Amino acid sequence: MSLINIRKKTVSVEHAPIEIVERKGRGHPDTLCDGAAEELSVALSRYYLAHFGAILHHNTDKALLVGGRAHAAFGSGEVIAPMYLLLSGRATVTADEQLIPVGAIALKQVTAWMGRTLPHLRLPGDLIVDYRINPSSPDLHALFSTTHVPRANDSSFAVATAPLSELERLVKSVEEDLNGAAMKRRYPQIGEDIKVMGLRTEEQIQLTISVAFIAAETPNLATYLAVKEAIAGEVHALAATITRRQVTVMVNTGDRIETGNVYLTVTGTSAEQGDDGEVGRGNRVNGLITPMRPMTLEATAGKNPVAHVGKLYQVYAQQIVNHIVTDISEVDAATCTLLAQIGAPITEPQAIAIDVESPLSEEQLTAPITRIVNNVLNNWEAIRDGFLHRRWPLF
Amino acid sequence: MSLINIRKKTVSVEHAPIEIVERKGRGHPDTLCDGAAEELSVALSRYYLAHFGAILHHNTDKALLVGGRAHAAFGSGEVIAPMYLLLSGRATVTADEQLIPVGAIALKQVTAWMGRTLPHLRLPGDLIVDYRINPSSPDLHALFSTTHVPRANDSSFAVATAPLSELERLVKSVEEDLNGAAMKRRYPQIGEDIKVMGLRTEEQIQLTISVAFIAAETPNLATYLAVKEAIAGEVHALAATITRRQVTVMVNTGDRIETGNVYLTVTGTSAEQGDDGEVGRGNRVNGLITPMRPMTLEATAGKNPVAHVGKLYQVYAQQIVNHIVTDISEVDAATCTLLAQIGAPITEPQAIAIDVESPLSEEQLTAPITRIVNNVLNNWEAIRDGFLHRRWPLF
Amino acid sequence: MSLINIRKKTVSVEHAPIEIVERKGRGHPDTLCDGAAEELSVALSRYYLAHFGAILHHNTDKALLVGGRAHAAFGSGEVIAPMYLLLSGRATVTADEQLIPVGAIALKQVTAWMGRTLPHLRLPGDLIVDYRINPSSPDLHALFSTTHVPRANDSSFAVATAPLSELERLVKSVEEDLNGAAMKRRYPQIGEDIKVMGLRTEEQIQLTISVAFIAAETPNLATYLAVKEAIAGEVHALAATITRRQVTVMVNTGDRIETGNVYLTVTGTSAEQGDDGEVGRGNRVNGLITPMRPMTLEATAGKNPVAHVGKLYQVYAQQIVNHIVTDISEVDAATCTLLAQIGAPITEPQAIAIDVESPLSEEQLTAPITRIVNNVLNNWEAIRDGFLHRRWPLF
Amino acid sequence: MSLINIRKKTVSVEHAPIEIVERKGRGHPDTLCDGAAEELSVALSRYYLAHFGAILHHNTDKALLVGGRAHAAFGSGEVIAPMYLLLSGRATVTADEQLIPVGAIALKQVTAWMGRTLPHLRLPGDLIVDYRINPSSPDLHALFSTTHVPRANDSSFAVATAPLSELERLVKSVEEDLNGAAMKRRYPQIGEDIKVMGLRTEEQIQLTISVAFIAAETPNLATYLAVKEAIAGEVHALAATITRRQVTVMVNTGDRIETGNVYLTVTGTSAEQGDDGEVGRGNRVNGLITPMRPMTLEATAGKNPVAHVGKLYQVYAQQIVNHIVTDISEVDAATCTLLAQIGAPITEPQAIAIDVESPLSEEQLTAPITRIVNNVLNNWEAIRDGFLHRRWPLF
Repeated sequence: MSLINIRKKTVSVEHAPIEIVERKGRGHPDTLCDGAAEELSVALSRYYLAHFGAILHHNTDKALLVGGRAHAAFGSGEVIAPMYLLLSGRATVTADEQLIPVGAIALKQVTAWMGRTLPHLRLPGDLIVDYRINPSSPDLHALFSTTHVPRANDSSFAVATAPLSELERLVKSVEEDLNGAAMKRRYPQIGEDIKVMGLRTEEQIQLTISVAFIAAETPNLATYLAVKEAIAGEVHALAATITRRQVTVMVNTGDRIETGNVYLTVTGTSAEQGDDGEVGRGNRVNGLITPMRPMTLEATAGKNPVAHVGKLYQVYAQQIVNHIVTDISEVDAATCTLLAQIGAPITEPQAIAIDVESPLSEEQLTAPITRIVNNVLNNWEAIRDGFLHRRWPLF
Repeated sequence: MSLINIRKKTVSVEHAPIEIVERKGRGHPDTLCDGAAEELSVALSRYYLAHFGAILHHNTDKALLVGGRAHAAFGSGEVIAPMYLLLSGRATVTADEQLIPVGAIALKQVTAWMGRTLPHLRLPGDLIVDYRINPSSPDLHALFSTTHVPRANDSSFAVATAPLSELERLVKSVEEDLNGAAMKRRYPQIGEDIKVMGLRTEEQIQLTISVAFIAAETPNLATYLAVKEAIAGEVHALAATITRRQVTVMVNTGDRIETGNVYLTVTGTSAEQGDDGEVGRGNRVNGLITPMRPMTLEATAGKNPVAHVGKLYQVYAQQIVNHIVTDISEVDAATCTLLAQIGAPITEPQAIAIDVESPLSEEQLTAPITRIVNNVLNNWEAIRDGFLHRRWPLF
Repeated sequence: MSLINIRKKTVSVEHAPIEIVERKGRGHPDTLCDGAAEELSVALSRYYLAHFGAILHHNTDKALLVGGRAHAAFGSGEVIAPMYLLLSGRATVTADEQLIPVGAIALKQVTAWMGRTLPHLRLPGDLIVDYRINPSSPDLHALFSTTHVPRANDSSFAVATAPLSELERLVKSVEEDLNGAAMKRRYPQIGEDIKVMGLRTEEQIQLTISVAFIAAETPNLATYLAVKEAIAGEVHALAATITRRQVTVMVNTGDRIETGNVYLTVTGTSAEQGDDGEVGRGNRVNGLITPMRPMTLEATAGKNPVAHVGKLYQVYAQQIVNHIVTDISEVDAATCTLLAQIGAPITEPQAIAIDVESPLSEEQLTAPITRIVNNVLNNWEAIRDGFLHRRWPLF
Repeated sequence: MSLINIRKKTVSVEHAPIEIVERKGRGHPDTLCDGAAEELSVALSRYYLAHFGAILHHNTDKALLVGGRAHAAFGSGEVIAPMYLLLSGRATVTADEQLIPVGAIALKQVTAWMGRTLPHLRLPGDLIVDYRINPSSPDLHALFSTTHVPRANDSSFAVATAPLSELERLVKSVEEDLNGAAMKRRYPQIGEDIKVMGLRTEEQIQLTISVAFIAAETPNLATYLAVKEAIAGEVHALAATITRRQVTVMVNTGDRIETGNVYLTVTGTSAEQGDDGEVGRGNRVNGLITPMRPMTLEATAGKNPVAHVGKLYQVYAQQIVNHIVTDISEVDAATCTLLAQIGAPITEPQAIAIDVESPLSEEQLTAPITRIVNNVLNNWEAIRDGFLHRRWPLF
């Protein structure tokens, strides 16, 4: 087992003078790419498991969503040029002398998922899903066929922190609330491409929210403005349950009312009109972009859940800090950093560093933290299987 | 009006010692491309007409269907790598300062049409529809906006003959029968990719028929062989209603029963396993490939129905000969050749040549044939509109 | 050996009242596709032969050239949106456990060939070459590994006639002359996309010639008009050496001088501005489109030269008629029709029909024609190898 | 002018117990995408400037490099399936009624740049460059045509720190050294895809270096091992000039010598064999990935240099901290955070936060820092123009 470095340190950003937090909602082009890549990995994993008794090698962690062209007007609109989603990566295409329908799985699962994620997307018509997936190299297959602990396939780095700061909770809640079923029922004008940028300067919070409106549900400017105001009201109400700080809410600040230039979409995503997306350019594992915190550039979506430490270690690190702040009552905050070494068993990171904010001494912390770390690492099989049920938030 | 050259000549091939006739059925990769290109033209034409009061310029008469990979076995099967259909051409993309959803129309209509044409195609999953359609040049728009007779956009050639020979009727009927609803109900094993090759040597007819079987409907080799035999029987029965010549029927001669190598498909088309298709490589306007007859290489499918003489003249020529043999009882057979001249009104072909097999003299034939030719040419508007209702057989 | 049906019949079209003949020059979009597909087949064949001692299975006989957009003006011009060439088909991708660089061969050879064929094409920049080539099925490999005579892989039909009619020779010579090195030196304005349409009405010949001009070599309208006139003069001079009939020559009849709308191109091909191309839509094996003659729709380009009778039989038939009219001095004209049967040795066509125009009796013709046919069929290995040296004209 | 928040704070990570730093070299798939996207932006900017007197709107900041397949062996190798680079984004395609050759520029510039970056890449053959770039919306054009200060087109965040820590300098130097001309001359075996991962645990530094070897330059395993050892030696020598800490160097730890599984490539990049790349997934503006530092997820490459604050502010922030640590001798380290507000002039960030490590008081620091910030912001035109000469490091 790797050595665990535990040290006491200020972890929370609650008292930093400036804090910046962003969340890209589920219809944002980057988030759509994350989702598509992960759906493909889940579908392949399930197919491999059902047909061959094991999750075979694949990595579908790159994708490009090329934005289309659309014409949106109050009360109506249509996609002019469809969006184009190119899935890429590698996958096992034959096993036991059987061909594996990687391409058909990719098209079917990802198209269906896109349709569910963007209810106003017209299929077929508004989106082309294409793929360029090459066969995995045979030596990678071997890595997977073992009954031993899989070996890390890359040198990569993971980091996680708990608990979320107040601003982080706020930003995350706002997007989830606006993209929630209840809100959509009340305001069918709200599309899925929602971006929340939170800035806290000392005790003042400013939320800049970008919300794609659904043109067909927004008959006129008056409705648009009324719903914009209603959104601001909803966000204020939500904020009051989370923070006592003063909160300013700005919705769709790019609008130019005088020229009629407002944020209308046909499908609910800005990708319909030229905004492109890529995997791994959006939220981290905690659902946020937190530039003031230690942060990895690794994308989790689409990586195989067996040996790709760029995916696994993000989830391990998050589970470790979650347990530390939950299970050890005297810990106020914790950060976990994991560094993988290519070729080593995934249960043996090259470095495990834990920063904790706690009145306890390092000596007192060592035993319970070590136990938590070991529990998470020893739980690798259950964590792996959890990916197949989308149990772990990834973006 | 152009000069009409009428001459008496042997037109029919009934007494030629050798006759070869082929028909590619509606699920053949080339026919699928024809259909897709024409569906796109119809959909665009209707959109233009509905929104701008006129059929605007377009030519979508090229397409490539790249075959996929599939695994078909008795009773089951799946597409491994989807087919890929690339639509191409030119279309008017803006009019009256409005953007025209050419791409979205292409995807929606063609995908839906493919699904209807191949009932066993799983969508999404088994097919990618993509397009690369460039804007028409503005000067072509001008050609279309006139109220005058449109001008021919190309130098091209058309030819048609009536009536069909016995072998031609037989070959056509066999495919239509095997691809008909009644036959499919009785033999759900029969897929849509059917190719009939007819060879007549003097009084002997040999029909070589290739029929894609639907794997899911064919549980075992015994069923396969029984249906093959049943198909041969059905074809013999049909042939007996058309010809008194001796007919040999061979079905799926490429099968190697001993190695289990038979013609099974998942989707009903050979395109699922690598057979590619292109527009204009299959049947001519009479639904047949007739190498012993005068024949054009022009593709009709996907060309605009306003000014593209490569499309129009095929239909004009066919209507002219149909009328000649129907309306003039003393004519046994007729061929009509039309040559277009780029830039001239479509109603004024550069050359009109009519060959007729008839006891009448050329003098006696001139008046009625001239009347028929003029009627068809003067009917250009109704013929144009007929394309939008798929009234004219094209392939 | 198959039975040869020989019969005496009028073969030549010299005295038909109307004759229509077309040739698409080497820069025409369809001819470019033919050339690209064939270059790919030649390159693959050579690679297979060099590395594995045999030409392995492949068929790359479908391709789509999607036209681009260009801006051409007197003295200058540039491609705005590149052309896009999609190669497709099937090829053997592994042999003796080695991977075969099908994709890299396709890109390298076809791009280089396009550059040589269109000297004004700027590479990279004006053209994207892409490919979607699936692996051949393993059972097709087996067909190729035999030392026996290969078996026909399809039911298909070939036909050839000799000699060319006067109009046919004229049309072919005009294109070859205008696209020849000497003419290009004298008139660097002449691009490669040349289309010649010949119409003979009784003793009058009309040549409608379309010539893409090179914008950079054509500084102004005066030059354009002067070269157009010069071309007409050259064609008249050439025609005088071939025919005594009266010849009218029309060059670029689509021009509208008053609006400055003339046929200028940047690259020498109309594909730069939206004209698409496909394999098999242009010239037949004799280099011509001859709708008044028996004609096949089979494309030769890109098919494998080992077993694909759609390619082989066109060349066999052409060689047979060439020999008949050359070797048997009393034969004035001959047509050869070959019908292949899937599964039979390629040297055993299902039907061989020879029509001859000759004062000799069928009895007198039988022996020499049979000898010629057998010689050609027995020469199958040399003919196969000739494809690798581009020895047989194909389009 | 925006308010500048200055506060004193520990900025350097020199004394943190753990430090992790990574650099992806210039042949890494992600870096290749960054480079391609930026080259396209530079080429478009120059074209717009030369033809229209201003840099028109574009954003080409997304691209996907789909890895190919290759066969590399000691002394030889070849690309089997080419890599595929899809450029995407939006660009101004017409101005002053002229069409702009966006597609041709993209192909030409990016292909040439790829060839220069990867000298062993065979072109054409080993790479397909394709693009899907939609027209910018006209309202964005308006934003650019103003003579005023451009307005921020997005809400985004930038951060920069100076000076680099010792480990950061070391990691960066190692890659630059190994990818430098001198090293390549001595060791032509060294390819361009080099990744350096540095881990400092207290006073111990571990460098994990991944170096793609060029197969054609590496005749056998002995050479491979010798050069690997030589690389380690070179890195040790370089490290000795930068740090006194103990440095462990590991090169290509994924090698399995016993199975002959070593890191050979044909082209010098792992993208040849399935590793995909995307824009913005690699190095930040300082050339490094520094998870322990505040870090943005914004990609700079490909964004327009006029108004895209996601690009501009990264460079502004870097210039500000560079000046602070250089010009104010008593400052040991500084971090600058800039937050843009969509719609505001780019010279007026929503937030400017400067953290400094200095013996000076905040009062003493205010004046010189404010001057530096203002100088950089007022210098926006020169900075914009610098992008066209690739003056600012971006990744």
